[in-house]
Amino acid sequence: MFDLDERLRADTHAVGDLQLSLVLLNRDANYPWIILVPRREAMTEVYQLNAADRALLLQESCTLAEVMVALYQPEKINIATLGNQVPQLHMHHLARYKTDAAWPGPVWGKVPAINHSAGALSRRLDVLRAALAEHGLVANELVPGTTRAKEN
Amino acid sequence: MFDLDERLRADTHAVGDLQLSLVLLNRDANYPWIILVPRREAMTEVYQLNAADRALLLQESCTLAEVMVALYQPEKINIATLGNQVPQLHMHHLARYKTDAAWPGPVWGKVPAINHSAGALSRRLDVLRAALAEHGLVANELVPGTTRAKEN
Repeated sequence: MFDLDERLRADTHAVGDLQLSLVLLNRDANYPWIILVPRREAMTEVYQLNAADRALLLQESCTLAEVMVALYQPEKINIATLGNQVPQLHMHHLARYKTDAAWPGPVWGKVPAINHSAGALSRRLDVLRAALAEHGLVANELVPGTTRAKEN
Repeated sequence: MFDLDERLRADTHAVGDLQLSLVLLNRDANYPWIILVPRREAMTEVYQLNAADRALLLQESCTLAEVMVALYQPEKINIATLGNQVPQLHMHHLARYKTDAAWPGPVWGKVPAINHSAGALSRRLDVLRAALAEHGLVANELVPGTTRAKEN
């Protein structure tokens, strides 16, 4: 059974479910930073997914990247599957700006994480969920805090 | 017309062509580090590729990752499209080890690049070309040094 890694759970806010992947917003507010986690057990590399799941992950990644470009109007999208510290397969999507804290380098280990304010977090989740709902996002029941009702 | 970015050209050794992508070996010998560059003009993000090219890139990325696991037996594969400094769409593939210079962090900006010795480079290119030839790799005529003849 798929079970979200504890560190990913601790470091993110759940946004909802796409067909294959759980969508997570990183708690670090330095950058718009969204993570896809395919709901498949014991996967650490993209190539381990079967052909149908690979295609779904690609589609969801491209959809998410396009939504992030539309919402956040960044200079560049950075996408990565690293997993040296959290082996569970997960794909980072970052909106990057020439004015951000790590530009032009990658974001990892650059500056300390900062929190979203409560208001900014609520707005970001609302807007993101509305945009991804047009691409099939639904609430995730496995992760506390995903549904609107549970947040209130 | 597709033209390889000058910085990518300067920082790599050409390995050859897969159906969609030029395959490049990073000159930094700290890690087995291979880059795919789709031979398409004016692309900076994966989602900008058409559906057929997206699927090809995914297939080539997964093939390359599997070949790297077989050849280099790493702890983890890291895959990333960043492009903050070189916007031309290119996808990094790194074989990572618990003993490498940047583990467990990402490799960018961590330690100075080191060169392959001439012998090690020649062997690495030979082995890599042989492994990828089984997946359709052919010599790339656009990039000096790709073909065996030109190297000798």
